[in-house]
Formats: sequence, structure tokens, C-alpha cells
Amino acid sequence: SHGHVDLTHGAGGRAMMALIHHVFRQALGNPALDAGHDGAVLPAVPGRLVIATDAHVVAPLFFPGGDIGCLAVHGTLNDVAAMGAQPLYLSASFILEEGLALADLQRIAASMGRAAREAGVPVVTGDTKVVPRGQGGGVYITTTGVGVRREGVEVDGARARPGDHILVTGPIGDHGLAILCAREALGLATPIVSDTAALHGLVADLLHAAPEVHVLRDPTRGGLSATLNEIAHQSGVGMVLQEAAIPVRPAVAAACELLGLDPLDMACEGRMVIIVAAAAAGRALQALRAHPLGREAALIGEVVADGRHFVQMQTRFGGRRLVHWLAGDPLPRIC
Amino acid sequence: SHGHVDLTHGAGGRAMMALIHHVFRQALGNPALDAGHDGAVLPAVPGRLVIATDAHVVAPLFFPGGDIGCLAVHGTLNDVAAMGAQPLYLSASFILEEGLALADLQRIAASMGRAAREAGVPVVTGDTKVVPRGQGGGVYITTTGVGVRREGVEVDGARARPGDHILVTGPIGDHGLAILCAREALGLATPIVSDTAALHGLVADLLHAAPEVHVLRDPTRGGLSATLNEIAHQSGVGMVLQEAAIPVRPAVAAACELLGLDPLDMACEGRMVIIVAAAAAGRALQALRAHPLGREAALIGEVVADGRHFVQMQTRFGGRRLVHWLAGDPLPRIC
Ligand SMILES: Nc1ncnc2c1ncn2[C@@H]1O[C@H](COP(=O)(O)OP(=O)(O)OP(=O)(O)O)[C@@H](O)[C@H]1O
Ligand SMILES: Nc1ncnc2c1ncn2[C@@H]1O[C@H](COP(=O)(O)OP(=O)(O)OP(=O)(O)O)[C@@H](O)[C@H]1O
Ligand SMILES: [Mg+2]
Ligand SMILES: [Mg+2]
Ligand SMILES: [Mg+2]
Ligand SMILES: [Mg+2]
Ligand SMILES: [Mg+2]
Ligand SMILES: [Mg+2]
Repeated sequence: SHGHVDLTHGAGGRAMMALIHHVFRQALGNPALDAGHDGAVLPAVPGRLVIATDAHVVAPLFFPGGDIGCLAVHGTLNDVAAMGAQPLYLSASFILEEGLALADLQRIAASMGRAAREAGVPVVTGDTKVVPRGQGGGVYITTTGVGVRREGVEVDGARARPGDHILVTGPIGDHGLAILCAREALGLATPIVSDTAALHGLVADLLHAAPEVHVLRDPTRGGLSATLNEIAHQSGVGMVLQEAAIPVRPAVAAACELLGLDPLDMACEGRMVIIVAAAAAGRALQALRAHPLGREAALIGEVVADGRHFVQMQTRFGGRRLVHWLAGDPLPRIC
Repeated sequence: SHGHVDLTHGAGGRAMMALIHHVFRQALGNPALDAGHDGAVLPAVPGRLVIATDAHVVAPLFFPGGDIGCLAVHGTLNDVAAMGAQPLYLSASFILEEGLALADLQRIAASMGRAAREAGVPVVTGDTKVVPRGQGGGVYITTTGVGVRREGVEVDGARARPGDHILVTGPIGDHGLAILCAREALGLATPIVSDTAALHGLVADLLHAAPEVHVLRDPTRGGLSATLNEIAHQSGVGMVLQEAAIPVRPAVAAACELLGLDPLDMACEGRMVIIVAAAAAGRALQALRAHPLGREAALIGEVVADGRHFVQMQTRFGGRRLVHWLAGDPLPRIC
């Protein structure tokens, strides 16, 4: 078991304490975490509380552009940001599989710590379980984010209105394709890199410039097509997208064509969809493009009145097609 | 795949939405969860924030006295309570293994919903991932609890002082033994039932009667021996326990004897250890015994000055032995 996770690392005794000290606190440490209590005690939060949680089960654990560690930080920060809130704290629970190389765990924890520091959001409490070989996937990480939403921000999936403009903060599909191409079975060599990134800074700039934003959502599993169909249903509206306006990197488009996939169905982990009144769309786009993570932001379509809640696409060739909400393309362990 | 979890249930599309609606919202529903946003928006919290998280990976999923669903609620509520806080909200992330019977998932979600309602703490946001067969354990659930701690409460693992009394709220080891005996391989038929329960009501009564409590901690993995050794280290003290005073049910004692285990190392999921100044111990014990979950509370020992931080036990026969902090008895998937 030397150099690998074994069952004692999850048994609540000294071996677990040593792992927490030497791997996790080393990488993630901060006063709340280091206190070693049953949880974290933190200052009072001045405003409405926002809570978001995501399990991360991505395979492979390391992929072009990131790894499960930084992804687990970014994914949850982005859900807090998509609620129009400022993330303040993260918790992290780890399900380790017996046999995981400690060196891999260390790399993952370091990446998590780096992502949390860059985001300015500490991991204040955690948990470690070990499951026997064959009952896990190396490591699964659930993060929960707690944030604060200031008065006046009212973003909500049910607030899209006919006439609103639909923006996306950058090219779509990179994360999903990076994962697919990284799977050895495919043996594809491409320059595609995951877009994984924390978007709360970008969203703060956006809400500063355009506080009246109606909807924010990160197009993760199911991609842009699932996200827009979901919003269309929640708001009771339709949408019309302009295919030519949707940013897709050439390498992503090519890999999708090869694999028979639609970039619109592919997960992003560093993009935000924004729905905003037409009058504020220019201001919003300008604020996005001024931020390093929004340079390629684009206006991609418009909300329309439609009792059927269809999301339609104006194709490059002037036709129209429905953007379907897949029952669920079985792409396991994409995030 | 009919009647079983398949990979589409985790793919972000309509199949996942249907599962969330028909299984999870059905069982756990409340306005914040039903809103279906990226997370939950909640009212401002008046006081210091407390956050605790635990992954739950128990096997079998159903055991005498409970299941992974109610355990995932109780376990995290108890960590919030052990911080001296009132739990307000829970999040829940599910890692489902392909092939899990939907009927089992429904039972688990129902049990979770029941536990959350009984506790008065809603599950306000969630997440669902599906991993391929052979990469999970049926279902793993991470819950995160958010609570509020009022001014004046200062419980802390570093606050045990020589002369303090050590209390436990009831018999120890039931959960660990119930799980072990439930494992088919053992084939043991015993009347042992898990003690899994939410202790925040009991703790609220205790802190009302004795707000000056120094330390609270739930003796989960590693049992009483790990918990007391941990506190002894954090506080820089020693402890002397009275073996005859530690409540252990006869069936638990018998099963431990048979299996060569020490009840002190066995996980509890419905017990709290309390360390309190001697002057307040009587009041504390009285408050505990007045609550249905503390009827069998007992004074089990005393904190002493000891630079080596030893936890010692005065045996029934008048001798003394060290209560060791195991490196980690490898009891995988105990909670
Ligand atoms: N992977 C981790 N990264 C960072 N901190 C961790 C990690 N795992 C545990 N911790 C921290 O270590 C301390 C002990 O955690 P532990 O899970 O043993 O406590 P517990 O939840 O009270 O016990 P149990 O999980 O058995 O119910 C806590 O302060 C926790 O925040
Ligand atoms: N197991 C569950 N129980 C209760 N609610 C759930 C569960 N899983 C998801 N939800 C709820 O369903 C909604 C959609 O969750 P989903 O995970 O798809 O959103 P997301 O986190 O934004 O996307 P992703 O997980 O792909 O990043 C959220 O409101 C979430 O709280
Ligand atoms: Mg605890
Ligand atoms: Mg998410
Ligand atoms: Mg824990
Ligand atoms: Mg989201
Ligand atoms: Mg715990
Ligand atoms: Mg999610």
C-alpha cells in the first residue's frame, strides 16, 4: 500500500488524520480548515445566502486544460455565480478508491488549492472516505459553495422575456470534447483544451455594468441545447438562435463532425449563458469582452413568444431547425 | 434498463430531469429545491455561519435502524450540532451507480425526505451523477449542512480543561456493530440496531441548560477512542475514563467480544460527547436525560492535566489501561 490510498485512510484513525494533514491541509489550508473541528465557523454573511452543490466524477482525472481538482472548484463556483451571487466559502468531500496513487491525490489537491486561492474562495471544511477497489473511480469530489447575493440582483431561470437577447461568454463545447478526446479508447490527438474556469469575477463585472440581467446559467452537462431548453421551459418562452453567431472553435467543430456530435450538446465548464433585455445587451457584451474570460463573448439569439417553448436555430443556409433537448446522451463521467 | 438507473439519468438531459422530478423532488421537495435553479437562494442568516460536510458510502445501503438516506441527513446535521450551531439548510449530491434499482433509490430518497422533515431542515439544492457499473457502490451521498451559531456559544475541540467532566449522550457502538452484523458475509443474527439520529434538538436543549459547554463532538468513525484522543490532542490535556460508567448495550458488548472488537472503537451515528466544567455537569446531564435521545446519558470520566495527552481507562477491576487511537481499523463503508 506504500504510496497508495488504502482503507485505513478512511477509517477515522491516525492514518486518516495524517492524510488530511499532509495532503489536504497542505494544499487547501486556511484557518477555518486547519482548526480541525466537525465543521467550520465563519463570520455572519451580510445578505441573502446562496448554496450550490455538485459532485465531480470526471474521467480521466487529468485532462488537457485541467483535472478533477480545479474542475470541482470551478464547477461549484460557477453555479453560485449563475445565481448572481458572490461565492464566499467551499466545502469539499472526497471519495477515494483504494489503490489511488498518493502522488495523483497530491496533484489533485494542489490543483484544487490553486484554483481556490485564485478564486479567493477557501475550502473551509472537508471529508474523506475510502471505498474498496472496484467501488469507486479513483476519486470523486463533491464541492458545495456558499455565497451571498446582494439586494437588487434578481437573476432567475423564469425571467426570460420575449425580445430579450441571448449571450454566451465564449466558444462552446471545449470541455466535453477535451474529455472525449482524452479518453484513450478514442486515440484522437487534437489541440482541444477544456475551458474550465471560475466565472464569478466575470459575472460580478457583468452585473456591475448590467444589474438588470434576467437569467444566468452555465451550460454544463447537456450543453447549450439543454440549458436553453430548460430556461425556455422555466420562463414559458421560445428562442431563436443564429447558427453563424454561436462561437465554436474550429478544432471542436471538426472533432464533433468526426464523432457525429453536435457542439450544442457538449458540456462547457467555463462559459455562462446570459439573457438580458435588448436595451442592456450592448452594455452587457461590452463588460464581458473587457474581461479575460469573456473576450470571445457573443450575441447568439433572441427570446421569442412561443407557447410550445421551442428553441429554434436559424441555420447558416437560411433554414430553421429545432434545437432538441436530448433525453440524455450517455457520456458518463464528463464532469 | 427499465426500473434501473442508467447512464442517461446523469447526462443532463430530459431523463435526468425526469428522475429529479419524479424521485428527488417528490421525496425532498420544498420551494427552494423546486425552483430548479443552479443553486438555492435563501434569506439572510442572522449570526455566525457554520458549514459541515460528509460523504456517505455505507454498505449495505439498508441496515437495521436506518439506511444511507436518513444517515446522510443525520450525519451532517450532527456535525453542525457539534459546532454548537442550529442547522438551517442541507444540500445533497448523489453519485448513482448504473444498474441501481429505482425502487431502492426511491426508498432512500423517501427516507432522506422523512429525516429532513423530522429535523426541520430542508434539502434546498442537489446534484445527480451516474457512474458506470463497477465504478460506484450503488449510491454515494454527500450532504453539506449550513447553520447558524448564536453569540456566546464557544464550543471548540481545544477547550477541554483539567477538571472538566466527560459525558456521552447514550450507549456507544450500536451503529458500527449494526453495519458489521448486517453484512451478509458475517451471517450474525443480533438485535443490534443503528443509533442513527439527528441530535441538534438535544444539543439545543443542552446549550440552553448549560451554555458554557466546552467541547461537543459526535463519535463517528474511530468511535469514542478516536474522538477522545483527538480532543485530548487539540486541547493539550489527558483524560481518565471509568470503564464501568461507559454505557454499552449487552448485545453490542457480546458481538464485540465475539468479533474481537472494542466497543470504544465502534462508530456511533446518534451520540454526542460533551466536555463541560464540573460545576455545570449536573445541569448538563439533567438536560440530556430529559430529552428522548439522551435518556441514557452518562458521566464517563474526567479531563486531567497530562503533557502526553493520554486517554486512560480505569477498568472494572481497578487497573488502568491506555485507550489507543487506532491507526485506522479498516472497516470500509461503515458510514
Ligand atoms: N479531504 C479533506 N480535506 C480537507 N479537510 C478535511 C478533509 N477530510 C476531512 N477534513 C477535515 O478534517 C477534520 C476531521 O474530519 P472528519 O470527517 O474526521 O470529521 P467528522 O465529519 O466529524 O467525522 P465523520 O466523517 O466520521 O462523521 C474536519 O475538520 C474536516 O474539515
Ligand atoms: N438528486 C437531486 N435531488 C434534488 N434536487 C436535485 C438533485 N439533482 C439535481 N437537483 C436539482 O436539479 C436542478 C438541476 O441540477 P443540475 O445538476 O442539472 O444543475 P447544474 O449543477 O447547474 O448542472 P451540472 O451538474 O451539470 O453542473 C438544480 O436545481 C438542482 O438543485
Ligand atoms: Mg463529527
Ligand atoms: Mg453545476
Ligand atoms: Mg467527516
Ligand atoms: Mg449550473
Ligand atoms: Mg461527520
Ligand atoms: Mg449539478
